Amino acid sequence: MDVNEEYFNNITTRERAIFEGAITMGALFHQFVGTPISKATAPSLENAIKQSLELQPAIEKIDVKIDLSKLDESMTDFDYTTLNGDMLDIKVYSKIEDILAVIRIEFIEELNYPLMYVEDIFE
Amino acid sequence: MDVNEEYFNNITTRERAIFEGAITMGALFHQFVGTPISKATAPSLENAIKQSLELQPAIEKIDVKIDLSKLDESMTDFDYTTLNGDMLDIKVYSKIEDILAVIRIEFIEELNYPLMYVEDIFE
Amino acid sequence: MDVNEEYFNNITTRERAIFEGAITMGALFHQFVGTPISKATAPSLENAIKQSLELQPAIEKIDVKIDLSKLDESMTDFDYTTLNGDMLDIKVYSKIEDILAVIRIEFIEELNYPLMYVEDIFE
Amino acid sequence: MDVNEEYFNNITTRERAIFEGAITMGALFHQFVGTPISKATAPSLENAIKQSLELQPAIEKIDVKIDLSKLDESMTDFDYTTLNGDMLDIKVYSKIEDILAVIRIEFIEELNYPLMYVEDIFE
Repeated sequence: MDVNEEYFNNITTRERAIFEGAITMGALFHQFVGTPISKATAPSLENAIKQSLELQPAIEKIDVKIDLSKLDESMTDFDYTTLNGDMLDIKVYSKIEDILAVIRIEFIEELNYPLMYVEDIFE
Repeated sequence: MDVNEEYFNNITTRERAIFEGAITMGALFHQFVGTPISKATAPSLENAIKQSLELQPAIEKIDVKIDLSKLDESMTDFDYTTLNGDMLDIKVYSKIEDILAVIRIEFIEELNYPLMYVEDIFE
Repeated sequence: MDVNEEYFNNITTRERAIFEGAITMGALFHQFVGTPISKATAPSLENAIKQSLELQPAIEKIDVKIDLSKLDESMTDFDYTTLNGDMLDIKVYSKIEDILAVIRIEFIEELNYPLMYVEDIFE
Repeated sequence: MDVNEEYFNNITTRERAIFEGAITMGALFHQFVGTPISKATAPSLENAIKQSLELQPAIEKIDVKIDLSKLDESMTDFDYTTLNGDMLDIKVYSKIEDILAVIRIEFIEELNYPLMYVEDIFE
Protein backbone atom coordinates (compact mmCIF):
# COMPACT_ATOMS: atom_id res chain seq x y z
CA MET A 1 0.00 0.00 0.00
CA ASP A 2 1.14 3.52 -0.79
CA VAL A 3 0.18 5.30 2.42
CA ASN A 4 0.64 8.76 0.94
CA GLU A 5 -1.54 7.98 -2.04
CA GLU A 6 -4.15 6.19 0.05
CA TYR A 7 -4.49 8.53 3.01
CA PHE A 8 -2.87 11.86 2.27
CA ASN A 9 -3.78 12.83 -1.28
CA ASN A 10 -6.53 15.16 -0.05
CA ILE A 11 -4.16 17.66 1.54
CA THR A 12 -1.21 19.66 0.20
CA THR A 13 2.43 18.99 1.01
CA ARG A 14 2.48 22.08 3.19
CA GLU A 15 -0.63 21.00 5.06
CA ARG A 16 0.86 17.56 5.61
CA ALA A 17 4.05 19.05 7.08
CA ILE A 18 1.94 21.11 9.48
CA PHE A 19 -0.23 18.09 10.29
CA GLU A 20 2.65 15.78 11.19
CA GLY A 21 4.46 18.40 13.26
CA ALA A 22 1.30 19.24 15.19
CA ILE A 23 0.62 15.60 16.04
CA THR A 24 4.13 15.24 17.41
CA MET A 25 3.85 18.42 19.47
CA GLY A 26 0.55 17.31 21.02
CA ALA A 27 2.01 13.88 21.65
CA LEU A 28 5.13 14.99 23.46
CA PHE A 29 3.28 17.37 25.75
CA HIS A 30 0.87 14.73 26.96
CA GLN A 31 3.42 11.92 27.08
CA PHE A 32 5.92 13.67 29.32
CA VAL A 33 4.00 16.17 31.45
CA GLY A 34 3.93 14.71 34.96
CA THR A 35 7.45 13.24 34.86
CA PRO A 36 9.51 13.83 38.03
CA ILE A 37 12.27 16.32 37.27
CA SER A 38 15.10 18.34 38.84
CA LYS A 39 17.82 20.50 37.35
CA ALA A 40 20.17 17.54 37.44
CA THR A 41 17.86 15.23 35.50
CA ALA A 42 16.54 17.77 32.98
CA PRO A 43 19.17 16.92 30.31
CA SER A 44 18.32 13.19 30.33
CA LEU A 45 14.62 13.97 29.97
CA GLU A 46 15.25 16.50 27.18
CA ASN A 47 17.26 13.84 25.39
CA ALA A 48 14.59 11.14 25.74
CA ILE A 49 11.85 13.52 24.53
CA LYS A 50 13.97 14.43 21.52
CA GLN A 51 14.98 10.89 20.58
CA SER A 52 11.58 9.28 21.07
CA LEU A 53 9.51 11.85 19.21
CA GLU A 54 11.96 12.16 16.33
CA LEU A 55 10.83 8.61 15.47
CA GLN A 56 7.43 9.83 14.33
CA PRO A 57 6.64 10.18 10.61
CA ALA A 58 8.12 13.24 8.87
CA ILE A 59 9.93 14.54 11.95
CA GLU A 60 13.39 15.85 10.98
CA LYS A 61 14.56 17.19 14.30
CA ILE A 62 13.31 18.32 17.69
CA ASP A 63 14.93 20.97 19.87
CA VAL A 64 13.91 20.60 23.51
CA LYS A 65 14.63 23.13 26.22
CA ILE A 66 13.15 22.82 29.69
CA ASP A 67 12.87 26.23 31.34
CA LEU A 68 14.85 25.89 34.57
CA SER A 69 13.47 29.06 36.13
CA LYS A 70 9.92 27.77 35.67
CA LEU A 71 11.15 24.50 37.15
CA ASP A 72 12.46 26.39 40.18
CA GLU A 73 9.12 28.14 40.67
CA SER A 74 7.38 24.84 41.28
CA MET A 75 10.13 23.21 43.35
CA THR A 76 8.94 21.18 46.34
CA ASP A 77 10.40 20.27 49.74
CA PHE A 78 11.59 16.98 48.23
CA ASP A 79 14.07 18.62 45.83
CA TYR A 80 12.21 17.72 42.69
CA THR A 81 8.97 18.64 40.99
CA THR A 82 6.94 17.30 38.05
CA LEU A 83 7.26 18.52 34.49
CA ASN A 84 4.42 20.82 33.47
CA GLY A 85 3.57 22.44 30.16
CA ASP A 86 4.71 25.88 31.28
CA MET A 87 8.32 24.65 31.42
CA LEU A 88 8.41 23.57 27.76
CA ASP A 89 10.23 25.49 25.06
CA ILE A 90 10.31 23.17 22.09
CA LYS A 91 10.61 23.30 18.32
CA VAL A 92 9.49 20.39 16.16
CA TYR A 93 10.80 20.39 12.58
CA SER A 94 8.62 18.33 10.24
CA LYS A 95 9.45 17.88 6.58
CA ILE A 96 7.42 16.58 3.64
CA GLU A 97 9.25 16.71 0.32
CA ASP A 98 10.72 20.22 0.19
CA ILE A 99 8.51 21.83 2.79
CA LEU A 100 9.85 22.26 6.31
CA ALA A 101 7.43 23.34 9.05
CA VAL A 102 8.62 24.53 12.44
CA ILE A 103 6.07 23.95 15.20
CA ARG A 104 6.75 25.71 18.46
CA ILE A 105 5.50 25.55 22.02
CA GLU A 106 6.38 28.27 24.50
CA PHE A 107 4.75 29.67 27.59
CA ILE A 108 2.97 32.96 26.93
CA GLU A 109 2.79 34.93 30.17
CA GLU A 110 -0.12 37.10 29.03
CA LEU A 111 -2.28 34.05 28.33
CA ASN A 112 -0.96 31.95 31.24
CA TYR A 113 -0.79 29.25 28.60
CA PRO A 114 1.83 27.18 26.84
CA LEU A 115 0.87 28.04 23.25
CA MET A 116 1.51 25.76 20.29
CA TYR A 117 1.77 27.51 16.94
CA VAL A 118 3.46 27.32 13.54
CA GLU A 119 6.58 29.41 13.94
CA ASP A 120 7.92 29.13 10.43
CA ILE A 121 7.47 27.35 7.13
CA PHE A 122 10.31 27.01 4.65
CA GLU A 123 9.29 26.11 1.10
CA MET B 1 -3.46 40.48 22.65
CA ASP B 2 -5.14 39.08 19.56
CA VAL B 3 -3.74 35.54 19.55
CA ASN B 4 -4.90 34.85 16.01
CA GLU B 5 -3.29 37.99 14.66
CA GLU B 6 -0.13 37.53 16.70
CA TYR B 7 0.54 33.83 16.22
CA PHE B 8 -1.55 32.44 13.39
CA ASN B 9 -1.50 34.98 10.56
CA ASN B 10 1.16 32.99 8.69
CA ILE B 11 -1.10 30.06 7.90
CA THR B 12 -4.46 29.75 6.16
CA THR B 13 -7.75 29.03 7.90
CA ARG B 14 -7.71 25.56 6.45
CA GLU B 15 -4.18 24.92 7.69
CA ARG B 16 -5.13 26.15 11.13
CA ALA B 17 -8.09 23.77 11.30
CA ILE B 18 -5.78 20.89 10.39
CA PHE B 19 -3.17 22.10 12.89
CA GLU B 20 -5.52 22.29 15.87
CA GLY B 21 -7.15 18.94 15.13
CA ALA B 22 -3.77 17.24 14.78
CA ILE B 23 -2.53 18.58 18.11
CA THR B 24 -5.62 17.26 19.83
CA MET B 25 -5.27 13.84 18.19
CA GLY B 26 -1.62 13.52 19.23
CA ALA B 27 -2.54 14.71 22.71
CA LEU B 28 -5.32 12.26 23.36
CA PHE B 29 -3.33 9.26 22.18
CA HIS B 30 -0.43 9.96 24.52
CA GLN B 31 -2.57 11.10 27.44
CA PHE B 32 -4.73 8.00 27.66
CA VAL B 33 -2.71 5.09 26.28
CA GLY B 34 -1.76 2.96 29.30
CA THR B 35 -5.03 3.46 31.19
CA PRO B 36 -6.44 0.28 32.75
CA ILE B 37 -9.57 -0.76 30.86
CA SER B 38 -12.22 -3.47 30.58
CA LYS B 39 -15.42 -3.72 28.56
CA ALA B 40 -17.35 -2.45 31.56
CA THR B 41 -15.25 0.68 31.99
CA ALA B 42 -14.77 1.55 28.31
CA PRO B 43 -17.77 3.93 28.20
CA SER B 44 -16.52 6.04 31.12
CA LEU B 45 -13.08 6.32 29.53
CA GLU B 46 -14.55 7.20 26.11
CA ASN B 47 -16.58 9.91 27.82
CA ALA B 48 -13.60 11.39 29.70
CA ILE B 49 -11.47 11.41 26.52
CA LYS B 50 -14.24 13.19 24.65
CA GLN B 51 -15.02 15.77 27.32
CA SER B 52 -11.42 16.63 28.21
CA LEU B 53 -10.10 17.00 24.68
CA GLU B 54 -13.11 18.96 23.45
CA LEU B 55 -11.79 21.72 25.72
CA GLN B 56 -8.84 22.39 23.42
CA PRO B 57 -8.87 25.37 21.05
CA ALA B 58 -11.03 25.00 17.89
CA ILE B 59 -12.30 21.53 18.77
CA GLU B 60 -16.01 21.23 17.89
CA LYS B 61 -16.62 17.61 18.74
CA ILE B 62 -14.83 14.32 19.29
CA ASP B 63 -16.26 10.88 18.55
CA VAL B 64 -14.49 8.18 20.53
CA LYS B 65 -14.91 4.47 19.97
CA ILE B 66 -12.73 1.92 21.72
CA ASP B 67 -12.50 -1.29 19.68
CA LEU B 68 -13.73 -4.00 22.05
CA SER B 69 -12.44 -6.87 19.93
CA LYS B 70 -8.93 -5.38 20.03
CA LEU B 71 -9.45 -4.99 23.77
CA ASP B 72 -10.32 -8.68 24.02
CA GLU B 73 -7.16 -9.66 22.15
CA SER B 74 -4.95 -8.19 24.84
CA MET B 75 -7.02 -9.33 27.83
CA THR B 76 -5.02 -10.58 30.83
CA ASP B 77 -5.64 -13.07 33.63
CA PHE B 78 -6.72 -10.17 35.84
CA ASP B 79 -9.81 -9.33 33.75
CA TYR B 80 -8.57 -6.01 32.48
CA THR B 81 -5.87 -4.73 30.17
CA THR B 82 -4.35 -1.35 29.35
CA LEU B 83 -5.52 0.91 26.56
CA ASN B 84 -3.24 0.84 23.54
CA GLY B 85 -3.29 2.80 20.31
CA ASP B 86 -4.55 -0.14 18.26
CA MET B 87 -7.89 0.02 20.11
CA LEU B 88 -8.60 3.62 19.13
CA ASP B 89 -11.14 4.63 16.51
CA ILE B 90 -11.57 8.36 16.92
CA LYS B 91 -12.66 11.38 14.92
CA VAL B 92 -11.68 14.88 16.00
CA TYR B 93 -13.68 17.72 14.41
CA SER B 94 -11.80 21.03 14.47
CA LYS B 95 -13.31 24.23 13.12
CA ILE B 96 -11.80 27.59 12.28
CA GLU B 97 -14.28 30.09 10.84
CA ASP B 98 -16.13 28.10 8.15
CA ILE B 99 -13.63 25.32 7.69
CA LEU B 100 -14.25 22.02 9.42
CA ALA B 101 -11.46 19.42 9.44
CA VAL B 102 -12.05 15.81 10.46
CA ILE B 103 -8.94 14.15 11.83
CA ARG B 104 -9.13 10.39 12.19
CA ILE B 105 -7.19 7.66 13.92
CA GLU B 106 -7.82 4.04 13.12
CA PHE B 107 -5.77 0.88 13.22
CA ILE B 108 -4.55 -0.17 9.76
CA GLU B 109 -3.93 -3.92 9.77
CA GLU B 110 -1.59 -3.82 6.77
CA LEU B 111 0.72 -1.33 8.51
CA ASN B 112 0.27 -2.76 12.04
CA TYR B 113 -0.12 0.88 12.94
CA PRO B 114 -2.79 3.19 14.30
CA LEU B 115 -2.71 5.79 11.53
CA MET B 116 -3.68 9.43 12.03
CA TYR B 117 -4.80 11.24 8.91
CA VAL B 118 -7.12 13.98 7.64
CA GLU B 119 -10.32 12.15 6.76
CA ASP B 120 -12.30 15.07 5.44
CA ILE B 121 -12.37 18.82 5.14
CA PHE B 122 -15.59 20.76 4.73
CA GLU B 123 -15.25 24.31 3.42
CA MET C 1 -0.22 -20.96 38.71
CA ASP C 2 -1.16 -19.60 42.11
CA VAL C 3 0.06 -16.02 41.81
CA ASN C 4 -0.22 -15.35 45.52
CA GLU C 5 1.79 -18.42 46.43
CA GLU C 6 4.34 -17.84 43.67
CA TYR C 7 4.97 -14.12 43.99
CA PHE C 8 3.58 -12.79 47.25
CA ASN C 9 4.43 -15.33 49.96
CA ASN C 10 7.38 -13.23 51.14
CA ILE C 11 5.26 -10.37 52.46
CA THR C 12 2.43 -10.18 54.99
CA THR C 13 -1.20 -9.61 54.13
CA ARG C 14 -0.95 -6.11 55.53
CA GLU C 15 2.15 -5.37 53.46
CA ARG C 16 0.43 -6.65 50.36
CA ALA C 17 -2.57 -4.38 50.92
CA ILE C 18 -0.23 -1.41 51.25
CA PHE C 19 1.74 -2.52 48.19
CA GLU C 20 -1.26 -2.82 45.89
CA GLY C 21 -2.79 0.46 47.02
CA ALA C 22 0.50 2.29 46.54
CA ILE C 23 0.93 0.98 43.00
CA THR C 24 -2.53 2.19 42.09
CA MET C 25 -1.93 5.62 43.62
CA GLY C 26 1.34 6.06 41.71
CA ALA C 27 -0.36 4.84 38.55
CA LEU C 28 -3.31 7.18 38.62
CA PHE C 29 -1.20 10.27 39.28
CA HIS C 30 1.05 9.66 36.31
CA GLN C 31 -1.68 8.42 34.00
CA PHE C 32 -3.96 11.42 34.34
CA VAL C 33 -1.78 14.42 35.19
CA GLY C 34 -1.68 16.56 32.05
CA THR C 35 -5.29 15.93 31.02
CA PRO C 36 -7.17 19.04 29.86
CA ILE C 37 -9.77 19.97 32.46
CA SER C 38 -12.39 22.58 33.40
CA LYS C 39 -15.00 22.72 36.15
CA ALA C 40 -17.54 21.36 33.71
CA THR C 41 -15.50 18.31 32.76
CA ALA C 42 -14.09 17.48 36.20
CA PRO C 43 -16.88 14.99 37.05
CA SER C 44 -16.31 12.92 33.90
CA LEU C 45 -12.58 12.77 34.59
CA GLU C 46 -13.13 11.85 38.25
CA ASN C 47 -15.40 9.06 37.09
CA ALA C 48 -12.92 7.69 34.54
CA ILE C 49 -10.07 7.76 37.07
CA LYS C 50 -12.23 5.89 39.57
CA GLN C 51 -13.53 3.27 37.17
CA SER C 52 -10.25 2.55 35.41
CA LEU C 53 -8.07 2.24 38.50
CA GLU C 54 -10.62 0.19 40.42
CA LEU C 55 -9.79 -2.55 37.89
CA GLN C 56 -6.34 -3.10 39.38
CA PRO C 57 -5.67 -6.06 41.68
CA ALA C 58 -6.99 -5.75 45.26
CA ILE C 59 -8.58 -2.33 44.73
CA GLU C 60 -11.95 -2.18 46.49
CA LYS C 61 -12.89 1.41 45.84
CA ILE C 62 -11.43 4.77 44.89
CA ASP C 63 -12.77 8.15 45.98
CA VAL C 64 -11.64 10.91 43.64
CA LYS C 65 -12.06 14.60 44.29
CA ILE C 66 -10.48 17.23 42.08
CA ASP C 67 -9.88 20.45 44.02
CA LEU C 68 -11.74 23.11 42.05
CA SER C 69 -10.09 26.04 43.80
CA LYS C 70 -6.65 24.69 42.83
CA LEU C 71 -8.06 24.24 39.33
CA ASP C 72 -9.12 27.90 39.32
CA GLU C 73 -5.64 29.02 40.36
CA SER C 74 -4.11 27.60 37.20
CA MET C 75 -6.89 28.65 34.81
CA THR C 76 -5.75 29.96 31.43
CA ASP C 77 -7.13 32.41 28.88
CA PHE C 78 -8.61 29.47 26.99
CA ASP C 79 -11.06 28.52 29.77
CA TYR C 80 -9.40 25.26 30.68
CA THR C 81 -6.18 24.09 32.24
CA THR C 82 -4.36 20.77 32.65
CA LEU C 83 -4.73 18.49 35.64
CA ASN C 84 -1.77 18.66 38.00
CA GLY C 85 -0.94 16.71 41.12
CA ASP C 86 -1.77 19.61 43.44
CA MET C 87 -5.46 19.31 42.47
CA LEU C 88 -5.77 15.68 43.57
CA ASP C 89 -7.56 14.61 46.74
CA ILE C 90 -7.92 10.86 46.42
CA LYS C 91 -8.37 7.81 48.60
CA VAL C 92 -7.54 4.34 47.30
CA TYR C 93 -8.98 1.44 49.31
CA SER C 94 -7.06 -1.81 48.78
CA LYS C 95 -8.06 -5.04 50.44
CA ILE C 96 -6.25 -8.35 50.87
CA GLU C 97 -8.21 -10.92 52.86
CA ASP C 98 -9.41 -9.00 55.93
CA ILE C 99 -6.98 -6.13 55.78
CA LEU C 100 -8.15 -2.86 54.27
CA ALA C 101 -5.54 -0.16 53.58
CA VAL C 102 -6.51 3.42 52.76
CA ILE C 103 -3.89 5.20 50.66
CA ARG C 104 -4.31 8.94 50.39
CA ILE C 105 -2.96 11.73 48.24
CA GLU C 106 -3.52 15.35 49.20
CA PHE C 107 -1.69 18.58 48.62
CA ILE C 108 0.31 19.68 51.67
CA GLU C 109 0.75 23.45 51.54
CA GLU C 110 3.77 23.46 53.87
CA LEU C 111 5.67 21.06 51.60
CA ASN C 112 4.32 22.45 48.31
CA TYR C 113 3.86 18.79 47.49
CA PRO C 114 1.01 16.37 46.82
CA LEU C 115 1.89 13.78 49.48
CA MET C 116 0.97 10.11 49.21
CA TYR C 117 0.70 8.28 52.52
CA VAL C 118 -1.11 5.45 54.29
CA GLU C 119 -4.06 7.16 55.94
CA ASP C 120 -5.55 4.18 57.69
CA ILE C 121 -5.38 0.43 57.97
CA PHE C 122 -8.34 -1.62 59.16
CA GLU C 123 -7.54 -5.15 60.33
CA MET D 1 7.10 19.73 60.04
CA ASP D 2 8.57 16.28 60.48
CA VAL D 3 6.91 14.44 57.60
CA ASN D 4 7.85 11.02 58.90
CA GLU D 5 6.44 11.71 62.33
CA GLU D 6 3.33 13.40 60.96
CA TYR D 7 2.37 11.03 58.15
CA PHE D 8 4.26 7.76 58.46
CA ASN D 9 4.28 6.79 62.12
CA ASN D 10 1.41 4.34 61.59
CA ILE D 11 3.41 1.91 59.45
CA THR D 12 6.66 0.05 60.03
CA THR D 13 9.96 0.86 58.35
CA ARG D 14 9.60 -2.24 56.22
CA GLU D 15 6.08 -1.28 55.17
CA ARG D 16 7.27 2.20 54.28
CA ALA D 17 10.04 0.83 52.07
CA ILE D 18 7.48 -1.33 50.25
CA PHE D 19 5.07 1.61 50.01
CA GLU D 20 7.54 4.02 48.44
CA GLY D 21 8.89 1.46 45.98
CA ALA D 22 5.39 0.50 44.89
CA ILE D 23 4.39 4.10 44.25
CA THR D 24 7.42 4.58 42.06
CA MET D 25 6.77 1.39 40.12
CA GLY D 26 3.14 2.37 39.43
CA ALA D 27 4.27 5.84 38.48
CA LEU D 28 6.90 4.86 35.96
CA PHE D 29 4.64 2.38 34.18
CA HIS D 30 1.90 4.93 33.61
CA GLN D 31 4.23 7.83 32.88
CA PHE D 32 6.17 6.17 30.08
CA VAL D 33 3.87 3.58 28.48
CA GLY D 34 2.89 5.03 25.10
CA THR D 35 6.27 6.62 24.35
CA PRO D 36 7.50 6.11 20.77
CA ILE D 37 10.45 3.72 20.81
CA SER D 38 12.89 1.81 18.58
CA LYS D 39 15.98 -0.25 19.35
CA ALA D 40 18.12 2.82 18.70
CA THR D 41 16.27 5.03 21.17
CA ALA D 42 15.71 2.47 23.93
CA PRO D 43 18.87 3.44 25.85
CA SER D 44 17.91 7.12 26.08
CA LEU D 45 14.44 6.20 27.32
CA GLU D 46 15.83 3.72 29.86
CA ASN D 47 18.12 6.45 31.12
CA ALA D 48 15.34 9.05 31.45
CA ILE D 49 13.09 6.57 33.28
CA LYS D 50 15.90 5.76 35.68
CA GLN D 51 16.97 9.33 36.36
CA SER D 52 13.51 10.82 36.72
CA LEU D 53 12.05 8.17 39.03
CA GLU D 54 15.15 7.99 41.21
CA LEU D 55 14.13 11.48 42.34
CA GLN D 56 11.16 10.15 44.27
CA PRO D 57 11.33 9.79 48.06
CA ALA D 58 13.32 6.79 49.37
CA ILE D 59 14.36 5.54 45.93
CA GLU D 60 17.99 4.38 46.00
CA LYS D 61 18.36 3.06 42.50
CA ILE D 62 16.36 1.87 39.51
CA ASP D 63 17.50 -0.72 36.99
CA VAL D 64 15.59 -0.41 33.73
CA LYS D 65 15.73 -2.92 30.91
CA ILE D 66 13.43 -2.69 27.91
CA ASP D 67 12.89 -6.12 26.35
CA LEU D 68 13.99 -5.71 22.74
CA SER D 69 12.41 -8.96 21.55
CA LYS D 70 9.05 -7.79 22.88
CA LEU D 71 9.72 -4.49 21.15
CA ASP D 72 10.34 -6.35 17.89
CA GLU D 73 7.05 -8.22 18.23
CA SER D 74 5.07 -5.00 18.08
CA MET D 75 7.16 -3.28 15.40
CA THR D 76 5.19 -1.30 12.81
CA ASP D 77 5.72 -0.35 9.15
CA PHE D 78 7.12 2.98 10.34
CA ASP D 79 10.19 1.45 12.04
CA TYR D 80 9.13 2.29 15.57
CA THR D 81 6.44 1.26 18.01
CA THR D 82 5.14 2.53 21.36
CA LEU D 83 6.38 1.33 24.72
CA ASN D 84 3.97 -1.05 26.41
CA GLY D 85 4.03 -2.70 29.81
CA ASP D 86 5.00 -6.09 28.43
CA MET D 87 8.40 -4.71 27.40
CA LEU D 88 9.34 -3.62 30.93
CA ASP D 89 11.86 -5.46 33.09
CA ILE D 90 12.57 -3.11 35.96
CA LYS D 91 13.80 -3.21 39.54
CA VAL D 92 13.12 -0.34 41.93
CA TYR D 93 15.28 -0.28 45.07
CA SER D 94 13.65 1.72 47.89
CA LYS D 95 15.35 2.21 51.24
CA ILE D 96 14.06 3.45 54.58
CA GLU D 97 16.65 3.40 57.35
CA ASP D 98 18.24 -0.05 57.08
CA ILE D 99 15.53 -1.76 55.10
CA LEU D 100 15.96 -2.14 51.36
CA ALA D 101 13.00 -3.34 49.30
CA VAL D 102 13.36 -4.49 45.71
CA ILE D 103 10.19 -4.02 43.69
CA ARG D 104 10.11 -5.78 40.34
CA ILE D 105 8.02 -5.67 37.21
CA GLU D 106 8.36 -8.36 34.58
CA PHE D 107 6.08 -9.84 31.97
CA ILE D 108 4.65 -13.21 33.04
CA GLU D 109 3.77 -15.19 29.93
CA GLU D 110 1.31 -17.48 31.73
CA LEU D 111 -0.73 -14.50 32.96
CA ASN D 112 -0.25 -12.37 29.83
CA TYR D 113 0.45 -9.66 32.36
CA PRO D 114 3.34 -7.46 33.44
CA LEU D 115 3.34 -8.36 37.13
CA MET D 116 4.59 -6.02 39.87
CA TYR D 117 5.73 -7.75 43.04
CA VAL D 118 8.19 -7.48 45.92
CA GLU D 119 11.20 -9.45 44.75
CA ASP D 120 13.36 -9.12 47.81
CA ILE D 121 13.69 -7.32 51.12
CA PHE D 122 17.03 -6.86 52.83
CA GLU D 123 16.89 -6.02 56.53
